[in-house]
Amino acid sequence: MKKNTFSIIEMAKAAQKAAQNSLRLSSQLKDKVLQEMAESLWQKRTHIIKENQKDLSLAQKNKISKAMLDRLMLDDKRIQSMSQALRDIATLSDPVGQVLKAWCRPNGLWIHKVRVPIGVIAIIYEARPNVTSDCIGLCFKTSNSVILRGGSEAINSNIAIYEILRSVLVKNNIDPAMINFITTGDRSVVDELLKLNDYIDLVIPRGGEELIKKVVSSSRIPVIKHYKGICHVYVDEWADLNMAEKICLNAKLQRPAVCNAMESLLVHQDVAPRFIPLCLKKFYEANVEIRGCALTQKIAKGIPIKLATEQDYRTEYLDLKISVKVVKSLEEAIEHINTFGSHHSDTIVTENYNSALEFLRLVDSACVYVNASTRFTDGGQFGMGAEIGISTDKLHARGPMALEELTTYKYMVFGSGQVRS
Amino acid sequence: MKKNTFSIIEMAKAAQKAAQNSLRLSSQLKDKVLQEMAESLWQKRTHIIKENQKDLSLAQKNKISKAMLDRLMLDDKRIQSMSQALRDIATLSDPVGQVLKAWCRPNGLWIHKVRVPIGVIAIIYEARPNVTSDCIGLCFKTSNSVILRGGSEAINSNIAIYEILRSVLVKNNIDPAMINFITTGDRSVVDELLKLNDYIDLVIPRGGEELIKKVVSSSRIPVIKHYKGICHVYVDEWADLNMAEKICLNAKLQRPAVCNAMESLLVHQDVAPRFIPLCLKKFYEANVEIRGCALTQKIAKGIPIKLATEQDYRTEYLDLKISVKVVKSLEEAIEHINTFGSHHSDTIVTENYNSALEFLRLVDSACVYVNASTRFTDGGQFGMGAEIGISTDKLHARGPMALEELTTYKYMVFGSGQVRS
Repeated sequence: MKKNTFSIIEMAKAAQKAAQNSLRLSSQLKDKVLQEMAESLWQKRTHIIKENQKDLSLAQKNKISKAMLDRLMLDDKRIQSMSQALRDIATLSDPVGQVLKAWCRPNGLWIHKVRVPIGVIAIIYEARPNVTSDCIGLCFKTSNSVILRGGSEAINSNIAIYEILRSVLVKNNIDPAMINFITTGDRSVVDELLKLNDYIDLVIPRGGEELIKKVVSSSRIPVIKHYKGICHVYVDEWADLNMAEKICLNAKLQRPAVCNAMESLLVHQDVAPRFIPLCLKKFYEANVEIRGCALTQKIAKGIPIKLATEQDYRTEYLDLKISVKVVKSLEEAIEHINTFGSHHSDTIVTENYNSALEFLRLVDSACVYVNASTRFTDGGQFGMGAEIGISTDKLHARGPMALEELTTYKYMVFGSGQVRS
Repeated sequence: MKKNTFSIIEMAKAAQKAAQNSLRLSSQLKDKVLQEMAESLWQKRTHIIKENQKDLSLAQKNKISKAMLDRLMLDDKRIQSMSQALRDIATLSDPVGQVLKAWCRPNGLWIHKVRVPIGVIAIIYEARPNVTSDCIGLCFKTSNSVILRGGSEAINSNIAIYEILRSVLVKNNIDPAMINFITTGDRSVVDELLKLNDYIDLVIPRGGEELIKKVVSSSRIPVIKHYKGICHVYVDEWADLNMAEKICLNAKLQRPAVCNAMESLLVHQDVAPRFIPLCLKKFYEANVEIRGCALTQKIAKGIPIKLATEQDYRTEYLDLKISVKVVKSLEEAIEHINTFGSHHSDTIVTENYNSALEFLRLVDSACVYVNASTRFTDGGQFGMGAEIGISTDKLHARGPMALEELTTYKYMVFGSGQVRS
C-alpha cells in the first residue's frame, strides 16, 4: 500500500507539472496530435482487439451478463468510431484562450476574463472502453492533464488504448504525463487520490450511484456528479395527444437504458381518460412493465398495471419499465418533478403558452423541454460535439458537459502603473 | 443535539421551498424590497447599536484584541454604509433570467442557456456584522435562499440585522424562509448542515484556514473556498523601477491585513542591486518586518532583514511583514509563484511585451496583473458591484464572486414535437 500511495502522488505531481507546461501548446499542434491519435488507434486495432479478447474471456469466466459483454466488446467498427470521435474533437474550436468578457475601468485598468484549462482532472468510470479515448481526447483538447481509473473488467483494453494515445504525445515532444491511467486494481489508490487536492483540481465519477456517493463523501477535491436521470414527460390538459404519444414512446423506447430516457409519465386528469388507454396499450405491446397510481389502473382497464409505490417514482429503471401518475394540475406536476425527479431532463407536452412558460420557469432541472423528447439531452444533440457526460450538479457545469465545461477562467488585467487609493 | 438536528433540517427544507417559490419574484419587486431593507436598517439603527453593545461588552470581558473590537463595532456611519450597500445591490442589474446563449438546431429545436438561481446557499463566516447584510442582499437579489452562520462574537448584532431584514420579506408577502440565521452556538449544527446535500446546494466558508479545511473535509455539499491570498509582485529585469516601487508599496501598505495585499516580493537579479536597497528602505521606514533570501540580505546592507525560510514564502502574514527573493529569471519567478503562492492575485512590473504575455499566460492565479497593484482584486474595483468574497477555487467561480457567480444555468428547449431517431 505504501508503494501505491507513493506512486499516485508522483503521478498527480507529474500531471500537474505537465498541465502547467501545456499552456504553451497551440491549438494547431493539439489538433494535429488528435488527428495522429485517431490514426494510431486505427493502425493498431489488431493489438487493441487482442487485448480486448483477454477482457472478454475473463468476463465470460466471471459470467458477466450478455448486455455487459456487448458493451465491453471491441471490433473494427467500434474502433473506427472511437477514432472518428477523436477526429471530431480535433475539428471543434478550442475554448482555451477565448475571451469571455473584457472591459475597461474608469482608472484605465483593462480587465479580460479568459478561458483557461482547469488543470488536472481525474475521471473514475465503470463504462465502455471508448470512454477512455473520449476522455483523453476531450481533456487533451482543453490542455488539461487527465488521470483515468477505469473499471477492472476492461483493464486490458483500456491500457492498450491509453498506451497508444500516450505514445503519440511522446512522438510530438509533449510531456506524456498529460495522460495517465491507473493500472493497479488496488482500491486504496482511489482513496489516496481523493485526498490529493493540492495536485488534482477536479474529480468526475461516472458510474453507479454507489460509486458516486462514495467519491462525494470522501473527496477533498471538487466533484462534478453525473447522477441518475429520473426524467419525466408531463402531458398537459392542453396537449396535442398525438404528439404526446410520439414523444412518450420515443422518450422511453428509443434507448431505454440511458440516463435521458423517460422513467415517469405524468398525465393531467382532464386528458387522462383519452390519453392513458391508448398510450399505455402501445407501451404494453412494446413489453414495457407499467406501474401506475390507482387512477391509472382504473382508467387503463385491460392493461396489467402494478400499483406504483413512492419508491417507484424515485427509481431510475434504465429498463423497459415506467411509472405513471395522473395529476390534478400543472402545479402538481411541477411539484412532483421537483420532489421525485433527479433534476436531469423533463418535458411538458402542451399547446398552451402559459403552461409552457410556467413549466420552463419552475422545473428545477438541467434541461427543461416543451414538446420534445427528453432523449435530446446529449452533447452531440445539443451541437456541442463530444461530451464527457451529463452533469446533474448545479455548480460549474449543468447538463451536457463538453469542451467549454472542461475549462475555468482567469482574469488578465492590463495596467499602466495603477495603484489603489 | 437531536433537537438541533431536527431544526437545521427543517430550516433547510423550508429554505428550499422558499427558493423554488422565489422563481416567481420579479426583479422590480426584489429591488423594491432591497430598498426597503436599506431603509429599515437605517430606521432601526438604535436597536442594532444597542445589540452591538452587548457583543462589545462580552468581547471586552473576553479580552479580544483592539483590532477585533474595531471590526466588531457598529455606529451610525457603519450602519449607513451597510444600508448603502443594499441600495447599491438594488441598482445592479438582475442576472437571473439572462440568456447566456441561444441557438437553433438543424431539427428546429431552439435551445436557450439561461441563468437561474443556485437554490439554497449556506454561508459560514467569522467576519464583521456587515457580512450579514451583504450576504442577505446578494442572495436575495439573485433569488437564492440563504442560511447564515456567523461568528459567536457578533451574535447579537447579527441577529438584530437578520431580524430586521427578514421582517421586510414578511411585510411584502414573500416567504421569510428565504433568509435564515442559525442562532444556536452548538457546533454540531454545522456538522449536520454539511450533510444536507438534498436541500442545500452550495456552502461558502469565509474565515480562517482551519474553518475552511474543516468544511471541505466534512461537507457533502459543494464548497467554494475563499482561502488565503499569498500575493506576489514580481519586478522584472525590464521594469520601470519607479513604477515598481509605487506598486510594491501600495500592494503591501494600503491595507496590509487583507487577502489581496502583497506578501512576497520577487526581484530579477539584474535590477536587484538598484531596486532592493531603495525599496526595502521605504518598507523598513514604514515599520515593515522584512524576511529575505541571502542575496537580498547582502544587497540591502544596513537594513535589518531576517533570513527567509521556505515557510515564509508559504505564509500569508496579513500584517506589516513581507518576504523577499531575488530570482534569476522570469521563469523562476513564475515557477515560484505557481509553487508557493495561493493562486489569488499576482503582478508583474515590466515594460517588456513578451515578459508581460508570458507572465499572464503561465501564472495560474485567479487574477494576473501587468503593472498594477494586487489590491484591485475586489468586486467593487472590478466593477461588479458588491461581492460575496474572492474565490481561490477554480470550479464555478474564480476571483471576485459577485451576483453572476451566485447563479447557475439551465437549458430551456423549445420544441414542436421533435423525437430522436
